[in-house]
Amino acid sequence: MRPYRAHGSQRPPAPQGDAQEGTPRAPRRSSDEMRVYGLNACAALFARRPHDLRKVYLLEARIPDLKQVLAWCVQRKLGYRVVEAADLDKLTGSQHHEGVCFEARRFPLVSLSTLLQRLPPPPKPAVLVWLDGVGNPHNFGAVLRSAANFGVHGLLLNADSALALSGAAFRVAEGGAEHVPLAQIRAGEDVFGALRNSEITVAATVPREGEALYGARLPQRLAFVLGAEGGGMHRNLIDRAGLHLTIPGSGAVESLNVAASAAVLFGEYYRQHMTARVPRRSP
Amino acid sequence: MRPYRAHGSQRPPAPQGDAQEGTPRAPRRSSDEMRVYGLNACAALFARRPHDLRKVYLLEARIPDLKQVLAWCVQRKLGYRVVEAADLDKLTGSQHHEGVCFEARRFPLVSLSTLLQRLPPPPKPAVLVWLDGVGNPHNFGAVLRSAANFGVHGLLLNADSALALSGAAFRVAEGGAEHVPLAQIRAGEDVFGALRNSEITVAATVPREGEALYGARLPQRLAFVLGAEGGGMHRNLIDRAGLHLTIPGSGAVESLNVAASAAVLFGEYYRQHMTARVPRRSP
Repeated sequence: MRPYRAHGSQRPPAPQGDAQEGTPRAPRRSSDEMRVYGLNACAALFARRPHDLRKVYLLEARIPDLKQVLAWCVQRKLGYRVVEAADLDKLTGSQHHEGVCFEARRFPLVSLSTLLQRLPPPPKPAVLVWLDGVGNPHNFGAVLRSAANFGVHGLLLNADSALALSGAAFRVAEGGAEHVPLAQIRAGEDVFGALRNSEITVAATVPREGEALYGARLPQRLAFVLGAEGGGMHRNLIDRAGLHLTIPGSGAVESLNVAASAAVLFGEYYRQHMTARVPRRSP
Repeated sequence: MRPYRAHGSQRPPAPQGDAQEGTPRAPRRSSDEMRVYGLNACAALFARRPHDLRKVYLLEARIPDLKQVLAWCVQRKLGYRVVEAADLDKLTGSQHHEGVCFEARRFPLVSLSTLLQRLPPPPKPAVLVWLDGVGNPHNFGAVLRSAANFGVHGLLLNADSALALSGAAFRVAEGGAEHVPLAQIRAGEDVFGALRNSEITVAATVPREGEALYGARLPQRLAFVLGAEGGGMHRNLIDRAGLHLTIPGSGAVESLNVAASAAVLFGEYYRQHMTARVPRRSP
């Protein structure tokens, strides 16, 4: 996968450097900044795009884990503050910050055409995931983490998607958000046409009556579409999909959670196309 | 799987019947009772063990969805109350109650030996999951849901496990908790010996250096061991396991979430042993 980094033209002036102790004021952030928290999420951001870092808040106990980050702050004259847990709770709106919060440039979305241009060319394997109607940031983060694990090449969001890369989604993704390019579809954009031109089959995952996942030979170039629980995906999208997949099961529960479905689908794609050789089952 | 129901000897006297409107008082529950909430969790409880129901709280808007339950309450002289959302928030300690909360007998744990006796006999396929160190009720609920979907025959909890079938775990399991028998290991119990006697291989899932999942032929009778994120599983357990499995990946994130790992493992077991025939990959 090609590295995926922000361009560098919109930097606000550098904040004052040096550590400042005490309770942080509510900082004003420009609209292209956000707060990222969680140790793995912050570590991945720093590893992939250190130039996007603006400010660091951390617990004293986290200083040893973040030495490199703090050295970078000193070198670049970026502010960092050692704060109390209650301050981090307030800054992040969460108790799951794991002792660290970054203010950083927002992770940039790309256009669908840019995403498709960056894929390995046909007939090489390429796999995307398209979230249609998923609105829960924890599920979004969990899908990103599994997508990063299995090397999914990109994630598509609908034009009207309420999902954004919130701090919660970043944290749950455990660094995966830095590895999976995100494209937001523009209103009216011909996604099916664009995918077809890139030789990518659209596979809608449906709770019933699709082809059983473990009987299906998955196309090498594939976009899995996942719908929201309850609401499901748009009818139009189901109708236009070239393949309909159902994850089989006992029937004891109606379906898997969307994040579990994603993990199972990505895993099966990986098994079929991204491992060197899959041993045959003996009869 | 055999039906899994509470025995019927410990019933407290029937509460007064009929709907009572108004704010519920904080009810006193006996220690073998708990609150279950979420529509699918409550529906599954009612479908599997209606005799364990004690009392129902619901929003007025949920009456049409719960007609059968309310008819049962009337017939059995169980209390039900139509309440406000704020009351349900308080009763369940959650905003994810989906408009319904049951007071019900606690889902009974079984002993390991009972669980093993109820499995399909060797050499028939049988699959268990053993949670070692997992403490998060949402992950527990998510594992239960995937386990129910893929027909896992039982779940083992350590003697010192902090996990219990809380309302949150039930809700996240979306009914799956009613389908997967749970066994709590007794302190000092010889689990490896008991599993060996039942011809079950213990497969520890490890983040690195295990056999790659998609290259492994999984034994027909298998217990997957899953450890907590961060802490991982006990060293002793890793050392004694007959098989070590690693879910492969790109390396972009350290690992999958424990619930995503469970879904991937159960899915691969299902593919190998519970589908009639798996088509070969073409070269």
